[in-house]
Amino acid sequence: MAKAAASTSRVSKRTKERDAVTLKKLVGLADDVAKKALSKKEPVIDIPMRSRSNTIWDKKKGILEMGDASAARELFNLNQAKQFMQTLLHASTIKSFIEAEKTSSLRGVFYKAKHTVAGTKENTFDTQDESDPILEDLEVSLGALREELHIFAENRGTVVGNLTLVDKGDEIDCRRMGSGGYGIPSIVEPDVIQFKKCEAKFVLHVEKGTVWNRFNEDRFWEKNNCILTHGGGQPPRGVRRLLQRFSQELKLPIICLLDCDPWGHYIYSVIKQGSISLAFESSRLAIPQAKFLGIRAKDQEECDLSDAVKIDLSENDIKRAKEIAAYPWFEGHKGWQREIEHMLRNGFKMEVESLITKDISYVTDDYVPQRIKAKDWLE
Amino acid sequence: MAKAAASTSRVSKRTKERDAVTLKKLVGLADDVAKKALSKKEPVIDIPMRSRSNTIWDKKKGILEMGDASAARELFNLNQAKQFMQTLLHASTIKSFIEAEKTSSLRGVFYKAKHTVAGTKENTFDTQDESDPILEDLEVSLGALREELHIFAENRGTVVGNLTLVDKGDEIDCRRMGSGGYGIPSIVEPDVIQFKKCEAKFVLHVEKGTVWNRFNEDRFWEKNNCILTHGGGQPPRGVRRLLQRFSQELKLPIICLLDCDPWGHYIYSVIKQGSISLAFESSRLAIPQAKFLGIRAKDQEECDLSDAVKIDLSENDIKRAKEIAAYPWFEGHKGWQREIEHMLRNGFKMEVESLITKDISYVTDDYVPQRIKAKDWLE
Repeated sequence: MAKAAASTSRVSKRTKERDAVTLKKLVGLADDVAKKALSKKEPVIDIPMRSRSNTIWDKKKGILEMGDASAARELFNLNQAKQFMQTLLHASTIKSFIEAEKTSSLRGVFYKAKHTVAGTKENTFDTQDESDPILEDLEVSLGALREELHIFAENRGTVVGNLTLVDKGDEIDCRRMGSGGYGIPSIVEPDVIQFKKCEAKFVLHVEKGTVWNRFNEDRFWEKNNCILTHGGGQPPRGVRRLLQRFSQELKLPIICLLDCDPWGHYIYSVIKQGSISLAFESSRLAIPQAKFLGIRAKDQEECDLSDAVKIDLSENDIKRAKEIAAYPWFEGHKGWQREIEHMLRNGFKMEVESLITKDISYVTDDYVPQRIKAKDWLE
Repeated sequence: MAKAAASTSRVSKRTKERDAVTLKKLVGLADDVAKKALSKKEPVIDIPMRSRSNTIWDKKKGILEMGDASAARELFNLNQAKQFMQTLLHASTIKSFIEAEKTSSLRGVFYKAKHTVAGTKENTFDTQDESDPILEDLEVSLGALREELHIFAENRGTVVGNLTLVDKGDEIDCRRMGSGGYGIPSIVEPDVIQFKKCEAKFVLHVEKGTVWNRFNEDRFWEKNNCILTHGGGQPPRGVRRLLQRFSQELKLPIICLLDCDPWGHYIYSVIKQGSISLAFESSRLAIPQAKFLGIRAKDQEECDLSDAVKIDLSENDIKRAKEIAAYPWFEGHKGWQREIEHMLRNGFKMEVESLITKDISYVTDDYVPQRIKAKDWLE
């Protein structure tokens, strides 16, 4: 039976090929250190800088990217020796994960590497705060994604819609996932997940599970021939990467329905252009074509919503809104400048869930279909 | 085609029957108020008290329950008139949800009811903090669960394993859910979700998605013939209710793998006996037979774990541990008293993920199977 055969080795040929490439990079890093040591040169690892100052806004591509600056991490430097050894320790842990054909979490890597150095009272790592940045250093210096290093994040978010995908050999029909949906895994690379059949014409991405429930209960995806996702707030890497694959491989527009507040705007910003902290992965996570459908600052008036939808902007909201308006890609964007100004002029924010004040299914039956038909969105 | 037919009305006969019962209760509440008013008596609603003092530990059943105390909510009482009207307002909103055959979130109910009373400057509700307790009042006074009132919570948690279930007419084969799993919905009542086929002999419930990933990647559920769930930390209502249904209807042992810390102990306590704030729903959510497999205070020694697994207990941990030890059902339980004392004597806590220090799959290949075989758990 196909199932039994598949379960003896769930690791695909594509995964093995990908792993071979990553392993080569890891061994290359170690070889380089060893070669330098044997030729009596100082062992050094070159680590690209992940600072704000080394983050570049690529206007043409429409994404945040990491610049060329890098720093040498030296073994024979009292300030850097510990980090140097931590880097090699994590590289060795990752090599063992890849060889075992297994994945682990950031916390798992931390525990795996944490120990007291023999004959001393010195710990390799004391807290995970020390460990995570070293992993990011490895990602950028190897040019390998976290997922390629066999590290997963927390899973969050679900999907339903007119799509069949294959996940580790299991065929998942997202049209027949009931009220629960298919849980989006943390690692959604093409060697794990393949798209098999898709009739959907766009993706509707909503902020929260409660809103997703409304759309799924009303079978919005069936009536409007789309895919429906949420990310439980700020979408985790798996959700962002899956949305990007929907955009790039299936050529589907990604339409976001988020709250009209700085947090909603920020979520959109991260989906669209990437974040500073993960700028080195923007090319794999960002979706410059993503659209912001709503909630819009004009909606209280335009949709004739009651005053009940208004939530006063706090001082902090106002501060955040101004910060976001100054983001490089928001800065030159007239539509977004007007949008944020309008929200500030209103003095209130609005949540997607507030549309229930019109009618329980106003958001699914009227608001979203009308806006999509009119192509009334920001992008 | 079956699918097309199902999609025209996804509301099952069972749901309609359940809704008819709830509607009758709602209309009864309103009739009672109207009758009192028309016969010139004072309109009063009797609300069972959800306080700590009215929470009873039922030793025989092994769950926390709500006692018999109740308080009258009067219309002609300046301190209660607003709450009285809020209660009827929410009852009316819920009636409209049931009639529309739709569900909404706590936040949705809040927005639906929020407005300025005509001709005044008085709002029905100002914040959701005011709204949620009124809904709980309705739950207890009607004797109807939140799910029966058509209110869902945030979805969290996933399931895989040797089980086929039906969710709103869609058949979900939890053996073929890849790396992502089936997302556990918020409402898992028998009219929505039916169990179709189950070979599994037990349920392994783990605390976090990252640990669940390890077990799913190692196909623990296939090798050990079980169902695998997680609840993303403290499991939400949907996950607790699903576990209870696995326990009661499928007669499966629920085996919990949680951290060895007060938070892990508390999660277990809530799964097993219910919580004070939701004591009125314990009979539907609590699982007195649930077992605590680990992590155990003895494990660092017994499993020969390195010092790397130790995380010092904070002052707050020690305080919480002592509070939990004094819980009625922990109090009379020798095993649990020893367990908590042992942890306090150790002076450190341990996480499930720390078992990676032995080997990446030690937890799935050795630890859990051995403990289950030896029936080595607390209950």
